[in-house]
Amino acid sequence: MTMQASGIITLLSDFGTRDAYVGIMKGVALGICPTARLVDLTHEVPPQAVQLGALLLRSAVDYFPDGTVHLAVVDPGVGGTRAPVLVETARAVLVGPDNGLLAPAAAALEVRAVRRLARDDFFRHPVSDTFHGRDVFAPVAAHLAAGTPPAAFGPELPGLVPLDLPAPRSEAGAVHGEVVYVDHFGNLITNIPASALAAFRTHSLSVRIVGMTLSPLVSTYAAVVSGAPLALVGSWRMLEVAVRDGSAADLLQAGIATRVVVVGE
Amino acid sequence: MTMQASGIITLLSDFGTRDAYVGIMKGVALGICPTARLVDLTHEVPPQAVQLGALLLRSAVDYFPDGTVHLAVVDPGVGGTRAPVLVETARAVLVGPDNGLLAPAAAALEVRAVRRLARDDFFRHPVSDTFHGRDVFAPVAAHLAAGTPPAAFGPELPGLVPLDLPAPRSEAGAVHGEVVYVDHFGNLITNIPASALAAFRTHSLSVRIVGMTLSPLVSTYAAVVSGAPLALVGSWRMLEVAVRDGSAADLLQAGIATRVVVVGE
Amino acid sequence: MTMQASGIITLLSDFGTRDAYVGIMKGVALGICPTARLVDLTHEVPPQAVQLGALLLRSAVDYFPDGTVHLAVVDPGVGGTRAPVLVETARAVLVGPDNGLLAPAAAALEVRAVRRLARDDFFRHPVSDTFHGRDVFAPVAAHLAAGTPPAAFGPELPGLVPLDLPAPRSEAGAVHGEVVYVDHFGNLITNIPASALAAFRTHSLSVRIVGMTLSPLVSTYAAVVSGAPLALVGSWRMLEVAVRDGSAADLLQAGIATRVVVVGE
Repeated sequence: MTMQASGIITLLSDFGTRDAYVGIMKGVALGICPTARLVDLTHEVPPQAVQLGALLLRSAVDYFPDGTVHLAVVDPGVGGTRAPVLVETARAVLVGPDNGLLAPAAAALEVRAVRRLARDDFFRHPVSDTFHGRDVFAPVAAHLAAGTPPAAFGPELPGLVPLDLPAPRSEAGAVHGEVVYVDHFGNLITNIPASALAAFRTHSLSVRIVGMTLSPLVSTYAAVVSGAPLALVGSWRMLEVAVRDGSAADLLQAGIATRVVVVGE
Repeated sequence: MTMQASGIITLLSDFGTRDAYVGIMKGVALGICPTARLVDLTHEVPPQAVQLGALLLRSAVDYFPDGTVHLAVVDPGVGGTRAPVLVETARAVLVGPDNGLLAPAAAALEVRAVRRLARDDFFRHPVSDTFHGRDVFAPVAAHLAAGTPPAAFGPELPGLVPLDLPAPRSEAGAVHGEVVYVDHFGNLITNIPASALAAFRTHSLSVRIVGMTLSPLVSTYAAVVSGAPLALVGSWRMLEVAVRDGSAADLLQAGIATRVVVVGE
Repeated sequence: MTMQASGIITLLSDFGTRDAYVGIMKGVALGICPTARLVDLTHEVPPQAVQLGALLLRSAVDYFPDGTVHLAVVDPGVGGTRAPVLVETARAVLVGPDNGLLAPAAAALEVRAVRRLARDDFFRHPVSDTFHGRDVFAPVAAHLAAGTPPAAFGPELPGLVPLDLPAPRSEAGAVHGEVVYVDHFGNLITNIPASALAAFRTHSLSVRIVGMTLSPLVSTYAAVVSGAPLALVGSWRMLEVAVRDGSAADLLQAGIATRVVVVGE
């Protein structure tokens, strides 16, 4: 990146917090860049759930200062043929496996270059075939945070492996989407962005989910009574179905892949 | 505060650690105060459990250096009419929703002023109606940690909304209280402070819970055999019922609201 | 230690993350050493599981810079007769209870001296009988991170209390061991070190577990098809049984104490 490194490294993985794997990555990073600021995004991505990890990473990157390094490891193909990469963007550098995990965040941040991590003098040796988070990605993230330019790490690739995410589709004046993430509160985050709702008049818009119709779109949980479901553009800036003081996932018995339709009038 | 900001921000919420919400708050804070030291108290307050969050916050604030900013977000009323506030105390500043969450910690730290967060130029824009942790409280906490004086954020309020906590009562030489928190080890923390036990002779004091009598008060788990229940003043400085090498919650089938009585002789 | 303190303190405990106990230790540490870098290893050691805590601590210490202080608290004997200690090693200082918790990490790091924490002017007062993490170990770790030499904290002891870990044994050309840790992914980590496999020809080596024979030893998950079990030297540098894209613990119905035998041909 041409901007100054902020010294911040975020970490996202499916490593959980029971073992010391995350701490080990941090120890390796601090050995290379002692002044790095390490911020966990989450380590509770379900094991090997690349798509959920990608959505979580994308949900967070807008909120960090310019020059942040985002280190993400959900890596079922570790030791195989998937490439280790970094992505230079206008505001940040992403580091991780090229398996779709980085793709949505990279697109949101505006990709400048994708590079294969080929310079193994930046790695920790011996490089294991099972823990590239420790031996490849954390060292590279730390060197980036310490100011090494992205171009030093390897040659450009034509692009990232895309992520196969379900896309919303518009049809006959309706938008058809689905739930792609259920958060800790049981809020149902859909794949329908706020921008897709602009075509509708807010007050006549209805959201249909599991046979229920929620209307109109509200702007806050406080717009309905406690225990009632509602539809709003949530903090992800996506259409979200929630229950005030409760869990929409529980009340509506809904989850990932539950269909959601937005209609006018 | 008149004391120097320590640069430390503690964070407590009901956001859980599965999503990236906590990381997002930290990104926003570091964008404003790059040198802030961020310390998690816990993010596993049960969703919208203001009272438990308040007790946990209060359990921690005594142990941080002067000039710490405590950011707490358990906020079922976000987007409604509850005020966003800060509390200046002798040693620290508390930031969060005015729904009782800050009240016990504020009382313990000695309140100097309560202020409504009214100056929205300190907020992140656009301010959502669903995530004031990100848009209001984290930015204000970061500005405080960076040295902005509390008076800059808004006008004084007459006081905080109180928290409706069960109070112990003394009656006929006994103290009647209840369990208000069950910790990770299954220890039963009551609402009876160490000071309320001063009227009793330690060796003749008995604690009654679920039909069982524990006597005398001990000072350490090691005072009883493995697997046995005991009563002591624990690390919260409250009367606590525990089981050596075990869980009092499990062994006594007790939990929040279980009654506890302290008697002499 | 004679090397410079790195200012890094790692923390490992069985405190969980629901309560504020870990945050409290950090507050105490930052009050003493405001520049300390605090890195969590894990706080999800099962309550009072000294052996698992010891293995996790040992799994992490190699990856931190010289001069790191490792603070570990799994302390069923708090308030009893077990000694509070520090261990000076070639590269780091360990701080915690002398109950076996520190022993494997200390052995790996090369012990120079074990000292009883006897100088209570370094402690937080009053010292409770229930939370030495807050009152004894965190203050000592912070003073060490701030540069106080280990010898200042108390007199040398002859050694650490050892940990009673199951040892692998070689017999008739086979190595007999067992599973000692199951990680978040369901990988089965055994007590058979990589070095014990050197006597075998890699391609003719077989690993027997729950009536199944895995052969040959592979170097990466990607060497087998998705869903298949495999044996490899994992990131712990111990023999490990895993399932590609799955959980060996679930598939093999195996766990801690499951027997594992390595044979040639």
